[in-house]
Amino acid sequence: MKLIRFGSEGQEKPGLQLEDKRIDVSAFGEDFNEKFFETNGLERLVEWLKTNAENCPTIDDAVRLGSPIGRPSKLVCVGLNYAQHAAEAGMKVPSEPVLFFKSTTAIVGPNDNVIIPKNSEKTDWEVELAIVIGKKASYVALEDADDYIAGYVLHNDVSERAFQIEKEGQWCKGKGCDTFAPLGPFMATKDEVKDPNNLKLWLEVNGERLQDSSTSDFIFNVQHVVSYISQFMTLLPGDVISTGTPFGVGLGFNPQRYLKPGDVMRLGIDGLGVQEQTAVAYK
Amino acid sequence: MKLIRFGSEGQEKPGLQLEDKRIDVSAFGEDFNEKFFETNGLERLVEWLKTNAENCPTIDDAVRLGSPIGRPSKLVCVGLNYAQHAAEAGMKVPSEPVLFFKSTTAIVGPNDNVIIPKNSEKTDWEVELAIVIGKKASYVALEDADDYIAGYVLHNDVSERAFQIEKEGQWCKGKGCDTFAPLGPFMATKDEVKDPNNLKLWLEVNGERLQDSSTSDFIFNVQHVVSYISQFMTLLPGDVISTGTPFGVGLGFNPQRYLKPGDVMRLGIDGLGVQEQTAVAYK
Repeated sequence: MKLIRFGSEGQEKPGLQLEDKRIDVSAFGEDFNEKFFETNGLERLVEWLKTNAENCPTIDDAVRLGSPIGRPSKLVCVGLNYAQHAAEAGMKVPSEPVLFFKSTTAIVGPNDNVIIPKNSEKTDWEVELAIVIGKKASYVALEDADDYIAGYVLHNDVSERAFQIEKEGQWCKGKGCDTFAPLGPFMATKDEVKDPNNLKLWLEVNGERLQDSSTSDFIFNVQHVVSYISQFMTLLPGDVISTGTPFGVGLGFNPQRYLKPGDVMRLGIDGLGVQEQTAVAYK
Repeated sequence: MKLIRFGSEGQEKPGLQLEDKRIDVSAFGEDFNEKFFETNGLERLVEWLKTNAENCPTIDDAVRLGSPIGRPSKLVCVGLNYAQHAAEAGMKVPSEPVLFFKSTTAIVGPNDNVIIPKNSEKTDWEVELAIVIGKKASYVALEDADDYIAGYVLHNDVSERAFQIEKEGQWCKGKGCDTFAPLGPFMATKDEVKDPNNLKLWLEVNGERLQDSSTSDFIFNVQHVVSYISQFMTLLPGDVISTGTPFGVGLGFNPQRYLKPGDVMRLGIDGLGVQEQTAVAYK
């Protein structure tokens, strides 16, 4: 199943991406959020669709998509999870996952504009595979990690490098600006993703392919990451974990390349669709 | 006004701490959360109390207190915001605020047990003044910062030092373990706090006073912190900002001192009440 949320910002309704069209499932009466996942919403939705799918209205292709997941309790990210990216960032390959948070206020739809923050000169892109947690996860063993995953979603971990690296301390300053976390177009349930640790992912800026890699290059794979994070905090249903970006971000170029107003990012992952954002100046 | 939430974990109801008793205001029909603050809940509650206060039931003193604020969208913390603490932590005084996130799953009531995580040998204490945001805050000017503050609350920023410092990367691993963010006993509305930048704060372990300072020693004061964070992310109503801890944490002793099961932490801030937690082993 491919979950979507559609409509204007903050007013999104739930829907599904089918083979050839999108349908509105708001008659199911629930948003795709923590409570939905916590109460076996995916199974209940499948059951509900058996008798209701044919009555679900089709959504016009022109309608905006929001994040396919209602605001999660947290958006946890793994840093430097591809060896070649660690090198371009001038950092060593970590011996265990590097973790940081993005503010959930950064979450937007997959094709919304990305706002270059005030005083930013180094806004950068990062195509990433993100995991959506399906049930409460604490001290999860590696071999059980798949049981805690609801599905997968495409994420652009937009990052302001000066805020992230050149200011005092932790990375979160450069990761959580408004619009810095486009999610979508849909969350694919895990049954739709044959092997999350072997998916091609790519990103283009103004049509030029700058990131082009595979999650088979992960240092720490999806199961490792879920198990690892759950040793330090409880993951809740609907929480999002982003697994890190491969080589090819603006920071790694010589000279470095950053987004300017009007630049268009296009990115995708096998089986998880495509996003397209235009960078705009803060007004 | 002093907001409280009381009852069993996850089922808390709203109440008020009065001079001589606690009253149940669940008849007001709202929790003290993002929506409450966003919709002028404080003003509406004051109005409601004019005709309803005398009918509010008294809460028995034995009833558990939860966090006085429903789960916020984020719990942002300032690190190294007292010069003497930066020194004891072996770090330099920062030139601008150091920021990190605590997972909101760490939030518990002011007198709940603090669980020493699995594989932890360095669980530590940090008495802190926390700010509760009253309205959506983005790019707030320093002189306007007070307008965005709803009130203040006592916070023990419990920290696992090996997870925080000795593992790869960012601090969040040692800050967001379950029970690592006791909040309360109450949120005092800002009119109750004459000067948040001049409050005594202290913490005792097993009756021995180990932290004893004043927020007048802040490197970056309350207004500075709110304005600063709002340059990097949007703060939502009900969000909590913790302003850093003074000298006297376990990390700073020689030899270092950490919590063991049975240890009792007691901490307080002028006008914001007292917390008391017992450290227990993870089971």
